[in-house]
Amino acid sequence: MSQHRLVNPLVRNIRALKRGALVRQAVRIEEEIKQGMKKPYNEVIDVSRDNPHATGMKPMSFSRQVIASCIYPELIDSDKMPLDVRERAKTLLECIGGSVGCYSDTIGIPIMRDSVSDFLTRRDEGVPSASGNIFITHGSDHGFGLLLTMLVRGDRSPLVGVLTPVPSQDFGNALVASGATAVPYYLDGQQGWRLHTEELQRALRSAREVCDPIALYVINPGDPTGHVQSRESMEEIIRFVYEEKLLLFANEDHQDILIGEGCMFISYKKVLAEMGSPFSDAVELASIHSASKGFMGEGGLHGGYLELVNFDPSVQIEFDRLISLLGLPIIGQLALEVMLNPLQPGEPSYEQYQEKWDWAEQLYGSWLTMALNLCVCRFGRLRITHVLVIFQEEEKLPDFFYCSRLLEQTGLCVCPGSDLGLPEGTYHIRLCIMTSVDTMEEVLRRLGKFHKQFMKDFS
Amino acid sequence: MSQHRLVNPLVRNIRALKRGALVRQAVRIEEEIKQGMKKPYNEVIDVSRDNPHATGMKPMSFSRQVIASCIYPELIDSDKMPLDVRERAKTLLECIGGSVGCYSDTIGIPIMRDSVSDFLTRRDEGVPSASGNIFITHGSDHGFGLLLTMLVRGDRSPLVGVLTPVPSQDFGNALVASGATAVPYYLDGQQGWRLHTEELQRALRSAREVCDPIALYVINPGDPTGHVQSRESMEEIIRFVYEEKLLLFANEDHQDILIGEGCMFISYKKVLAEMGSPFSDAVELASIHSASKGFMGEGGLHGGYLELVNFDPSVQIEFDRLISLLGLPIIGQLALEVMLNPLQPGEPSYEQYQEKWDWAEQLYGSWLTMALNLCVCRFGRLRITHVLVIFQEEEKLPDFFYCSRLLEQTGLCVCPGSDLGLPEGTYHIRLCIMTSVDTMEEVLRRLGKFHKQFMKDFS
Repeated sequence: MSQHRLVNPLVRNIRALKRGALVRQAVRIEEEIKQGMKKPYNEVIDVSRDNPHATGMKPMSFSRQVIASCIYPELIDSDKMPLDVRERAKTLLECIGGSVGCYSDTIGIPIMRDSVSDFLTRRDEGVPSASGNIFITHGSDHGFGLLLTMLVRGDRSPLVGVLTPVPSQDFGNALVASGATAVPYYLDGQQGWRLHTEELQRALRSAREVCDPIALYVINPGDPTGHVQSRESMEEIIRFVYEEKLLLFANEDHQDILIGEGCMFISYKKVLAEMGSPFSDAVELASIHSASKGFMGEGGLHGGYLELVNFDPSVQIEFDRLISLLGLPIIGQLALEVMLNPLQPGEPSYEQYQEKWDWAEQLYGSWLTMALNLCVCRFGRLRITHVLVIFQEEEKLPDFFYCSRLLEQTGLCVCPGSDLGLPEGTYHIRLCIMTSVDTMEEVLRRLGKFHKQFMKDFS
Repeated sequence: MSQHRLVNPLVRNIRALKRGALVRQAVRIEEEIKQGMKKPYNEVIDVSRDNPHATGMKPMSFSRQVIASCIYPELIDSDKMPLDVRERAKTLLECIGGSVGCYSDTIGIPIMRDSVSDFLTRRDEGVPSASGNIFITHGSDHGFGLLLTMLVRGDRSPLVGVLTPVPSQDFGNALVASGATAVPYYLDGQQGWRLHTEELQRALRSAREVCDPIALYVINPGDPTGHVQSRESMEEIIRFVYEEKLLLFANEDHQDILIGEGCMFISYKKVLAEMGSPFSDAVELASIHSASKGFMGEGGLHGGYLELVNFDPSVQIEFDRLISLLGLPIIGQLALEVMLNPLQPGEPSYEQYQEKWDWAEQLYGSWLTMALNLCVCRFGRLRITHVLVIFQEEEKLPDFFYCSRLLEQTGLCVCPGSDLGLPEGTYHIRLCIMTSVDTMEEVLRRLGKFHKQFMKDFS
């Protein structure tokens, strides 16, 4: 009996990422190293995605201690954990029904929505946030995916479109699976991956020929670009979606890690509120954040939220119903809770732990900056623009070829730009700098050596 | 701007469960108790779903110690955890990239597929299991939902149908969201919720008038019924799906907890293999299991798997692609790993921990049985059949009315049978016995007292 005919065509349209082949190649190489095969390197370093804990970033002790104590409550009743940790764990444990093994309510553990809205009100300096507009998720991808599932019409005619930035991770696949289509708009690589409203207008015009564009998706701070939008740029975006009657999906997952002088994060919600009428009452904004990125980097734990602003209450009821179909992992919510409510100066035992907390903060701040500086400086020395010239001359060579050869010869795994939606002929690689300074040193050493040889071989 | 028109009609069709209203009522009651309002009870007891840790079941120490140590690796390097725990945690931590914060590979952490297939080969006494046929999931609902998403055609005409047992939890909603439709088949409440092939044939005939039925969904051991199928019954089912060219979805989530004399779990995969040709080569079987149920009861952690048997390899490639869109929580996988590989006699330090392990096993075994015995005995004394008579006379009274009144007057939350798909006029309540003996005693005390009064008031 042939069941192949049964497969949903939407699933067939999900694009296999080239990074997948590189990861398989990396697994094979690691296996060979384990079996004693001689290589010019001892281990594979994978900086092809933002997976900071895998490349040396240390998790936040306080959060890990709290979560471990919730998992194994004997730690609360002993002297094996600091007092703050035990108190926080005890409160959380009561809140989740006494065990991390309890099913979470479909709206999240009881305090979760309030925690998020309190955090948002603090962050946005008083712009109000109602807990009823908060939806707890598995993380950013999950929130975005659910929203799309809800907004895509069943009949699929005309096709629903979402304006989506290029470069961006796993470009379009979430859209494809939900039955929508990604309409690419291109960030300006010559200007630090800035977003131009003219490009949005161009993308929207072309979209209207093939689909019904309903939303604009922005990622700020940019992933993987690191670009941070100015308030003026955000106001332009808001006017654009207002005039074009588009929903605004803002991925603000990286709000805690900004690199570069003078960079400051402002949320879309704050800018929208401060623009006043007619924008602040009309623009439907969905904003996502999670514990997977930022100073937590807890990608393996799955905790995030989505806030809806100016959405019709009846739509939110439908959304609640959809979100209730898949339960929420407890541990990710605990991580999110600690992220939203870190130990603060003035709390009874803050003095005792200030050192650790400061240390963690400084560490994350400093290595990020250092890593970036290193990166810029080394790339400068390599005159990386030459690679582009070579690639353009040898058009048969794709970015994947470069990445695969780099991995085989040096054990360094980076991501080909085409996986991020970048068009043919632009030849980019992406490497994630969220790693330790030591690792970054080694990454750049391997890349530098390989690249010089590559230029010799192909020039 | 009205966005309501945008909502996916599939989402609108998701049925709100009445249990939701009861949970909100319970939250309100708990709030009132907290504010000092006098009630004839001190706390709400919620046995409306299988959430054993919430009602007193103790988690398995070994598994919790291992997970806590992976979360906070300082525990591995100290003497705060037993040696076995530290060794197991160390191995797992290496396997997941050094931190539970690392993103999991989309096929699960590296050892996971092999762990599952080794477990299945042992469990099924040699019937082979290939790791390539294993897919790691968030839990049973997730595996089932993804499979449906993959198998539902984009055009939705004719509607794809799945034969689904009644009673069963969250009946049909997962199907609705994926664009399929649930075709109910009724289990025989008069015979311990047995499954009759004649009823399947009736359901299939009626289904073919309105949709294209592609699969039969069975839950064995039954949830919420507890019924365990005999080998003969399973063989009948296999012949039925073979003849009718249906896929077989087997939810085998409760394989570790069987209550009743002479009950024995055999997997559908084993029965299928032992039936031989033509069945064993042709019937496409999807079987799911998770750490949410059974002796772990870790519903909050989200770890499960799905095994495909006799599926077309090209379908499995598509499935891999779909599953890769949503990452997997690490902690759930750790729980699953420990569940599949508990400490065994013969392992170097088994003697040291045998006591704990035996204790845990005995506890789970004994209180389940005791709880059931209590339950049967108490219901006997209440002559519960009288309730049905009352309900039938007072047809305006739905099961929800009984549940809501029970909750208000006694603080006991149970689930109305209509939430499980049971038809109007049959009036069932469901209470989950996966709780401690003490809690079950209290549950039955409250139910008994209420029920007597209820009979007086409404007879």
